[in-house]
Amino acid sequence: MATAGKVIRCRAAVAWAPGKPLSVEEVEVAPPKAGEVRIKIVATSICHTDDHVLKGSLQKVEFPVIPGHEGAGIVESIGQGVTSVKPGDKVIPLCLPQCGECSFCQNPESNYCQKTHFSEPQNLLPDKTSRFTCKGKQIHHYLWISTFAEYTVVPEYAVAKIDAAAPLDKVCLIACGFSTGYGAAINTAKVKPGSTCAIFGLGGVGLSVVMGCKAAGAARIIAVDINKDKFAKARELGATDCINPQDFKKPIQEVLTEMTGQGVDYSFEAIGHADTMIAALASCNASTGVCVMVGELDSGAKISTDPVLLLTGRTWKGTLLGGWKTRECIPKLVSSYLEGKFNSDLLITHTLPFAKVNEGFELLRAGKSIRTVLLF
Amino acid sequence: MATAGKVIRCRAAVAWAPGKPLSVEEVEVAPPKAGEVRIKIVATSICHTDDHVLKGSLQKVEFPVIPGHEGAGIVESIGQGVTSVKPGDKVIPLCLPQCGECSFCQNPESNYCQKTHFSEPQNLLPDKTSRFTCKGKQIHHYLWISTFAEYTVVPEYAVAKIDAAAPLDKVCLIACGFSTGYGAAINTAKVKPGSTCAIFGLGGVGLSVVMGCKAAGAARIIAVDINKDKFAKARELGATDCINPQDFKKPIQEVLTEMTGQGVDYSFEAIGHADTMIAALASCNASTGVCVMVGELDSGAKISTDPVLLLTGRTWKGTLLGGWKTRECIPKLVSSYLEGKFNSDLLITHTLPFAKVNEGFELLRAGKSIRTVLLF
Repeated sequence: MATAGKVIRCRAAVAWAPGKPLSVEEVEVAPPKAGEVRIKIVATSICHTDDHVLKGSLQKVEFPVIPGHEGAGIVESIGQGVTSVKPGDKVIPLCLPQCGECSFCQNPESNYCQKTHFSEPQNLLPDKTSRFTCKGKQIHHYLWISTFAEYTVVPEYAVAKIDAAAPLDKVCLIACGFSTGYGAAINTAKVKPGSTCAIFGLGGVGLSVVMGCKAAGAARIIAVDINKDKFAKARELGATDCINPQDFKKPIQEVLTEMTGQGVDYSFEAIGHADTMIAALASCNASTGVCVMVGELDSGAKISTDPVLLLTGRTWKGTLLGGWKTRECIPKLVSSYLEGKFNSDLLITHTLPFAKVNEGFELLRAGKSIRTVLLF
Repeated sequence: MATAGKVIRCRAAVAWAPGKPLSVEEVEVAPPKAGEVRIKIVATSICHTDDHVLKGSLQKVEFPVIPGHEGAGIVESIGQGVTSVKPGDKVIPLCLPQCGECSFCQNPESNYCQKTHFSEPQNLLPDKTSRFTCKGKQIHHYLWISTFAEYTVVPEYAVAKIDAAAPLDKVCLIACGFSTGYGAAINTAKVKPGSTCAIFGLGGVGLSVVMGCKAAGAARIIAVDINKDKFAKARELGATDCINPQDFKKPIQEVLTEMTGQGVDYSFEAIGHADTMIAALASCNASTGVCVMVGELDSGAKISTDPVLLLTGRTWKGTLLGGWKTRECIPKLVSSYLEGKFNSDLLITHTLPFAKVNEGFELLRAGKSIRTVLLF
């Protein structure tokens, strides 16, 4: 490893300030300290949350920052004490860590690790310093993993070793979007065979919910979006009905309730809008309906609900990366992908060289892409 | 049965208009029509929801009305086609029916019957007429059961036959308050042995939640109320800690989080205030915490929530009569009471003759009673 222990100069996409396009720069990436891993990122895809970062709408992010959290790569070097990965291993950096030691990690029913960004900021590595500099300035990490960099440094508990046969330009989706949606159906909602589901929002995450509902054996999968261009893909992935709320005069929750008799068994919100969160809750049946919030609202926003929606029997819950314990389950999902148990490749609509990262965001904002994979 | 088929003249407490005290009047109770049961009410207790009725804060109630929904009595006569009860049977009228035929009744996981007041008004019996008149005026039913009347007429699917040995002046609590709170812990939250629970509000329902948590084996049961006079009873029923939010400068959810490390496993709101609903949600742990809403807000009120509370892993749900399928489970709960499996008598603080019904409401409003049982 000729680079081990040395500063690496490489490309990265830097967000210098909120509301500005990314700037592809040459950055310096310091070697990993004790307990850290330096990874050569091979492929990274673009998730809506990265766009929230660029807009400056996530409270906890500090600028300048290198975004990106849906990547896959190869370990370049390891810091002192790292034992679970070694140089040359294929890995996925984890935007939700699994320290294995906190009380939540030790609870078999929880995937919430107390080292997540909800518990502590991840704008610097755990020792409160950055490994990135650019033009003499310190650049912040994002969720500890900053995959929009050719090389990135992450704590050992935020990286998972995956099968050496995995195509990195495909399995990068398993780092976040696919696993979040697929797991929301399978782990969080625990969709039952023969059930009826509704999915609000047909981006990469929403379409992965569709795949999860299908895998769980749902009999009816109703896909809801105001962009009809998403319907063909939704049908290909398992949706049995596709509806556009703009085609109806009545609220979409009433349309869904009429379509299904009493409302769906499971509803999913994969957009992050307050109004669709309420519509999703009201769309599931009063008796045993389960509504899962998958989309993250812009920070600080609140939702206002009539508590009778819950008092009549509905369950409302959220999902964090689809409920998967990441270091344990991401490698298993990669293996399932290799065994053909699901085809997340169908979510990849564009592949671009990394230099075209801003073009990728334009496709996303125009609703023209599902997932764009960027290749270094 | 000398009275069968005849109009019965008897006492009832009529609410002539919102905001006025009840008026004990002589009313006429018509005989039961086909599918109906006329019951001689022996005892009825006073629940907070009856007070909401008197205040006029429940949208669906129509005045004049005979309130009351926590009663027990003896079948006086039956209408054509009634087969599940006969004159002389001890019964509990059900404020949540179980028709047995709707899709929710047929779902083993649901106790929501499509004949509840959420689905159709219960101010008149199913044939859209009333069995009550007073001073020449038609009086409305309340939740179909109006137990503040010496005789009441209910549909067959809103009555459950109970053990002939049951003391009616005690088991009337099983009609609503006790079963709602006890079932919220056992059926809705599914409290696990060794877990930590917090209960907001120590009225009859909240104290029944305490009993349910204890029966389920919770290791720590934290009772929360601003009325310290409730603490002795809470401890007697199983609370391990009692706290008054007014004793702290910080929000109660922060107090509970500090007391328990990461928040409780299960929280219950048994008051019906928007602010305590949010506090209860925030008090349970981010990872796997379950918050159950038991209290009913005054109609039309909304609650405003930060969705991150859910996205980080919490589950929010409501309970309808503690999740019990009423016709099936209320008789079983009465049998359990007779077997000494729980002692709901501890919730009865006052017993009054029916004529003192307004005194009973005054005790309730002053926070001096838990349950007052009225005897005819």
